[in-house]
Amino acid sequence: MLVGAAADHSPRTATFAAYDAVTGAALAPRFEEAGPQDAARACALAAAAFESCNELAPVRRAQFLQRIGLEILELGDALIERAMAETGLPRGRLEGERQRTVGQLEFFASIVREGAWIDATIDPEQPQRLPARRPDLRRRHISIGPVAVFGASNFPLAFSVAGADTAAALAAGCPVVVKGHPAHAGTGELVARAVRGAVAACGLPVGTFSYLPGTTAELGAALVADPNIRAVGFTGSRAGGLALARVAAARAEPIPVFAEMSSINPVILLPGAARRRGAQLGQDYIASVTLGAGQFCTSPGVVLVLEHSQTDAFEQAATAALHDSAAQPMLTGAIQTAYRRGVDQLLSHPGVECLARGRPGAGAQPGQAALLAVTAERFMSEAALRQEVFGPASLLVRARDLQQIGCVIDLLEGQLTTTILFEPEDEPSVAALLPHLQRKAGRIIGNGWPTGVEVCHAMVHGGPYPATTDARYTSVGALALQRFLRPICYQNLPDSLLPAALRSDNPLQLPRRIDGVLHAS
Amino acid sequence: MLVGAAADHSPRTATFAAYDAVTGAALAPRFEEAGPQDAARACALAAAAFESCNELAPVRRAQFLQRIGLEILELGDALIERAMAETGLPRGRLEGERQRTVGQLEFFASIVREGAWIDATIDPEQPQRLPARRPDLRRRHISIGPVAVFGASNFPLAFSVAGADTAAALAAGCPVVVKGHPAHAGTGELVARAVRGAVAACGLPVGTFSYLPGTTAELGAALVADPNIRAVGFTGSRAGGLALARVAAARAEPIPVFAEMSSINPVILLPGAARRRGAQLGQDYIASVTLGAGQFCTSPGVVLVLEHSQTDAFEQAATAALHDSAAQPMLTGAIQTAYRRGVDQLLSHPGVECLARGRPGAGAQPGQAALLAVTAERFMSEAALRQEVFGPASLLVRARDLQQIGCVIDLLEGQLTTTILFEPEDEPSVAALLPHLQRKAGRIIGNGWPTGVEVCHAMVHGGPYPATTDARYTSVGALALQRFLRPICYQNLPDSLLPAALRSDNPLQLPRRIDGVLHAS
Repeated sequence: MLVGAAADHSPRTATFAAYDAVTGAALAPRFEEAGPQDAARACALAAAAFESCNELAPVRRAQFLQRIGLEILELGDALIERAMAETGLPRGRLEGERQRTVGQLEFFASIVREGAWIDATIDPEQPQRLPARRPDLRRRHISIGPVAVFGASNFPLAFSVAGADTAAALAAGCPVVVKGHPAHAGTGELVARAVRGAVAACGLPVGTFSYLPGTTAELGAALVADPNIRAVGFTGSRAGGLALARVAAARAEPIPVFAEMSSINPVILLPGAARRRGAQLGQDYIASVTLGAGQFCTSPGVVLVLEHSQTDAFEQAATAALHDSAAQPMLTGAIQTAYRRGVDQLLSHPGVECLARGRPGAGAQPGQAALLAVTAERFMSEAALRQEVFGPASLLVRARDLQQIGCVIDLLEGQLTTTILFEPEDEPSVAALLPHLQRKAGRIIGNGWPTGVEVCHAMVHGGPYPATTDARYTSVGALALQRFLRPICYQNLPDSLLPAALRSDNPLQLPRRIDGVLHAS
Repeated sequence: MLVGAAADHSPRTATFAAYDAVTGAALAPRFEEAGPQDAARACALAAAAFESCNELAPVRRAQFLQRIGLEILELGDALIERAMAETGLPRGRLEGERQRTVGQLEFFASIVREGAWIDATIDPEQPQRLPARRPDLRRRHISIGPVAVFGASNFPLAFSVAGADTAAALAAGCPVVVKGHPAHAGTGELVARAVRGAVAACGLPVGTFSYLPGTTAELGAALVADPNIRAVGFTGSRAGGLALARVAAARAEPIPVFAEMSSINPVILLPGAARRRGAQLGQDYIASVTLGAGQFCTSPGVVLVLEHSQTDAFEQAATAALHDSAAQPMLTGAIQTAYRRGVDQLLSHPGVECLARGRPGAGAQPGQAALLAVTAERFMSEAALRQEVFGPASLLVRARDLQQIGCVIDLLEGQLTTTILFEPEDEPSVAALLPHLQRKAGRIIGNGWPTGVEVCHAMVHGGPYPATTDARYTSVGALALQRFLRPICYQNLPDSLLPAALRSDNPLQLPRRIDGVLHAS
């Protein structure tokens, strides 16, 4: 069942199954475990494909990305049904996620076509300059090389085989080797076939894309350690991301690991907003907490309120909404076990109060929601209260005053998002808190909820450690491409030897900076 | 003798001296060793200055950079004379380097003013979008936070206290803490005073810049380990860079280390060029090898020639020129010792031939040049022959054919530069080699020599590991700023709360991307 370039035809013994998220039953068929030898083969093929991928003209690269989208759509309902079975996510969500995945490929296709990412820069020769002539210098971005991608369990389409990291890496001209997530092995394999179909349809080298299904840490480590791999994209747990980062750092030639790991996404409710629309915000809060069984990297794990402001309406509405919330199946048994343990641990701390539990739910691995509360003092004194609990749980933190909220924010680890709910009369407080929020997160949201990450030019889905391993990047949006590029300068080469992107006649019609002045294409 | 923010007034016992590079004599005065407590103090002040630095308007930031240049010029000849004594570099070189340092500050001032580095990006709200409204999303780059800079011994001005890393970090809005290089402690202290003068003249917080003189590895490690430091710039040896990278990786919150370390900068001489202008190229080669006693990160450590092409004129001219070359004083006794050991080790390998030694020279630490030769087979079989020997030595490598040259290039570690010398009839060979060169280096030079790094928009002074720790960046040129920036996204914030760079009326007149379309300012 190995797909594509990594497949060889030696007999295999180890196999694994994916499981139905509602019933817990194994789903047919079983999948063959890829091993280190498969990883090595896929990486060698990726290295062989590098030159073609890197020099593939923007228009052809864009066509390839769009073709992947078409091939995914052609999988039809079989893809949605398999994903529903494996993840327990509802049809509407998965259809939306498929649209997002295809839209993301289209978005990167448009980015690739425009070509600003190449950052074509020309400093022409200055033959008369003293004390010495300045040579002709030209710079472009090229692909960093083959990229290993580890998909996330919580977005079986948009952050998996042909998801954000794969789309960005292919857009950047990198061959990609995906380590499939075992929690949605069937979904992954279907999508991998779609990508392989696009590779073939576009006449690209077979090593442009490989897919390695498997359940072992050994496979992932072999992939990251492979000398042909030049960068790693990962979305998942902190333990998983840091383990891969350690492998990457121990290589003879270390490589960057872009891991998006954990975040509790603090939300601050200011008094004006609490007073004017507390009840509505309380309902919206729980809708965000329980969305997708809370299995979002941007799920609001903490809401900070001022204890002497009028937050009763907010708290009552939130408590009631959470109490009524149905348990949705969680992605895997292991995730549910970790979630239950996480909630129990939070509740075991003195001073942590349970405001409400959601309905218990049926099935193999339901995620019963939880709304807890604690004082800011306690929250600040116990580091364990500030750790992500992945699932539909959230902690209301009651602070004495605005200054204490600032102290809480300063004490937190790096975050993907921070959110602030306010009315015009709260703006001075927002202004006072913004520097704190800015130091801590990649995205600051006003009057909204952190779940929901737009694919667009301005998005930052990243943030200071340990939200990600590198705050200088984002895994969503136009800038996501930049993780997989490096600059290269050509000094004094004639047009006949320069890459098309840097030739004087600009055959690719790129936006370029010439002698310091930016020219649109 | 501690300069600036890091100075406290407790009594100090440990002191150290700088040495005259020609006579080896200790120079007055002695300098007080900064310790870990000084590093902690400087870093705390830097953290306190962060907000001011980060939000300093581009025009004021540019004025600050220019003011540093003026203050350096105001030091007058005292700076040049002290640098001459400490480094053994001639007046002309140091005056040129001062001009480069001041010019680099001016260059970054112009970059900061234009504001493209902010990458201001606005995706306006789409209230009608289905299935859900798109919120207003705006992105800018902000400073990564306080930066630690470790200067290089070989450029006491341009890559030291107010050199490339400091200028880029200040331009990016980062407070800077410089660990002074003990090989030019007096030069460093003078320049640090100039920077402090500019900080005061511009009314900036004292923590904007601190300077820590010292000789101990403990001091450097304390600086990199300090939790307030967010990134490190380093130029120097591979051992030094990797030691700092290990400290950074072991932090509770790892940070990036941008270390520019070692490179042998291979040059390929193609037959047409050897035939048509071999003698001139031979002379130019040795001029590049011996420039500044070979103490350049871009010194051409290896020239690859085709053994059956007409390279006699080239080799004879190079041999004669090297034989006549005068020994220049090296920067420190330790560098000279390492250089002599490096040459001896190269010569101890069977098959390595000594084509010429330069004149022995007088003084405490002369750098006697060396031109060696070896076959490509031998060069490929002995990894030790492919290591940088810092100083005026170079190795002529005789290859069988073009394909073997490609194999040699593929076998090398990452490089700052690769160079190719050719005539029009060689162009097919250049085209065949370019993919190899491109994978290996940050800059590809045609018909020139690698020494000489322009400060301009298109420059890349970086390259794959171990030339640097991160091939995605450059330490020279406009792009150098990007090491010290991170993106941040503001979702749904009103103009009244947005930073000036992202307000709808564009008060800073920045170039911006709005709804995907790039607008010049």
